[in-house]
Amino acid sequence: MRHGGDLAEAGAAFGVPPKGWLDLSTGVNPYAYQLPPFSSESLTRLPQKAALDRLLAAARKAYGWADDTPVCAGPGSQAMIQLLPYLRFRKTVVVLGPTYGEHAFQWARAGHEVREAKTLGEIGQPDVVVVVNPNNPTGRIASPKALAKVADELAARDGLLVIDEAFADANPDVSFGGRLNGRKAIVLRSFGKFFGLPGVRLGFAAGDEEMVTELAAELGPWPVSGPALEAGAAALGDEAWISSMRLRLSVEAMRLDDLLGACGFTIIGGTDLFRTARHARAPEIHAALARAGVWTRRFDERADELRFGLPGGDEAYERFATALRAAV
Amino acid sequence: MRHGGDLAEAGAAFGVPPKGWLDLSTGVNPYAYQLPPFSSESLTRLPQKAALDRLLAAARKAYGWADDTPVCAGPGSQAMIQLLPYLRFRKTVVVLGPTYGEHAFQWARAGHEVREAKTLGEIGQPDVVVVVNPNNPTGRIASPKALAKVADELAARDGLLVIDEAFADANPDVSFGGRLNGRKAIVLRSFGKFFGLPGVRLGFAAGDEEMVTELAAELGPWPVSGPALEAGAAALGDEAWISSMRLRLSVEAMRLDDLLGACGFTIIGGTDLFRTARHARAPEIHAALARAGVWTRRFDERADELRFGLPGGDEAYERFATALRAAV
Repeated sequence: MRHGGDLAEAGAAFGVPPKGWLDLSTGVNPYAYQLPPFSSESLTRLPQKAALDRLLAAARKAYGWADDTPVCAGPGSQAMIQLLPYLRFRKTVVVLGPTYGEHAFQWARAGHEVREAKTLGEIGQPDVVVVVNPNNPTGRIASPKALAKVADELAARDGLLVIDEAFADANPDVSFGGRLNGRKAIVLRSFGKFFGLPGVRLGFAAGDEEMVTELAAELGPWPVSGPALEAGAAALGDEAWISSMRLRLSVEAMRLDDLLGACGFTIIGGTDLFRTARHARAPEIHAALARAGVWTRRFDERADELRFGLPGGDEAYERFATALRAAV
Repeated sequence: MRHGGDLAEAGAAFGVPPKGWLDLSTGVNPYAYQLPPFSSESLTRLPQKAALDRLLAAARKAYGWADDTPVCAGPGSQAMIQLLPYLRFRKTVVVLGPTYGEHAFQWARAGHEVREAKTLGEIGQPDVVVVVNPNNPTGRIASPKALAKVADELAARDGLLVIDEAFADANPDVSFGGRLNGRKAIVLRSFGKFFGLPGVRLGFAAGDEEMVTELAAELGPWPVSGPALEAGAAALGDEAWISSMRLRLSVEAMRLDDLLGACGFTIIGGTDLFRTARHARAPEIHAALARAGVWTRRFDERADELRFGLPGGDEAYERFATALRAAV
């Protein structure tokens, strides 16, 4: 499966640019949370349960989950995406698409029957429904109210709603957090994207107690590294940074819209961490940008679309703008 | 399952000691490898495939695996221990015991029929054999030659030998590395114990191509954090540190033997990272040490045994020696 963010693919196809890559192929915040140095104990001790409990408390607060919501942490929400399908007997699964390809891939790999639906109205009666909200790459938003209805319908026949909120940090109004408690649903959160720290590998699953308990068992006794425990507790607890970053990202995303629009792209969606845009010459523009050292995300299945992360700062913006104007 | 190294259990039972805990409950090297600060890119980028390839090359060299040996990395050898049982259809498994409890636990949890054998001569004809070598906590060593014979017998009937070398770093002569290539066996290595960096979460599986490929798929696209990629590549590549540390640990382990012997313990085994010893009053000594802030490893199933990690340095040694002399 193709993912954004691995510059080996870029380098293999286009060589390494003299100024290095400007990587816009992910939805990772370029303004990373500034961490203090990790304590030596975060490295020299096995991760401590007390530190994990502190991290989970910070996550509950930051993500709007009630204090008694079952939550587990793992090395990235990708870990949860891979494990969830193995906790269910072979079932029918509907993924609201098009979306992040790993969901359908992992459910199918575990032997489930997977179908894609375009809207919540078309999901039918499957056993599991997966919704990425806001969606990647389209930015489509399902309202928490509509999702609560889906969750309740599924729960009534022992089904499960999985909501991947990997890109909900910038837009907390869409989060299911406040409606989660007591519902048979699982919400996934990604730490690395909004905080700009994907190398840390940290993600969360919250909701249905039975599923969270099983996930925690699959994740084992030391699911999160010492550095990730410290990074997560510090960043998730920094409310001032979180709220000012939301503002900053929304301004930068609008600036990106203006540039893309001026270069003939039609914005088809996104979140404040990326925009997805259409252009008849998208494949050629992708290649021209790559030759200029700017790596963007293309999609095998939709050749006329490109996804652009935020450049991050004036210098990166100017480099991207110059390359884009030359490419179109 | 009870594990060493979580001081929450110690604190709950005995309170927090005024001088803090001296944790001897693990087999983790107290002389941690001194890492340079992690690069900011290790945190702000998704872990890169090129960096993972560099790490795997360093692991092959350090562990004596041929350049073309299939290897994968994950967040601790614990991750491999948990995933391996799910790659096999329901089979009979023999674990050479007594040993690290997670092996039998995880194979049984995945639905396999698990039996314990005391010696290689008593394994019978199972589909999977698991050997921890050197063994934890007994230190029992199986020769690579004897293990190669077991591996070949198993392979002849489509079976699998799993060798957990979590404590082989201090004693490379027992490692199966040189006999691995082309054999249907899997060797597990733990990074954190010998390098004193268990918080990093890093481990490896090497050997049979099909199993390693399946493990890598289960571990997903970003199995190892950015800090772990850097820590592993630096430490595994530092041959001078590795060889001088082996010497240092063997000296310290002998010093521990002398102390334990003088205090009436019978050493029943160990590696240079821990010693396991027997004493008729072991439970009382464990509790007295805990009241003095020294946390050691006891075993529910063998109440007269305690396991002692190395104290690490003169001050810690004196604290332990004083507490132990008072306790016995």
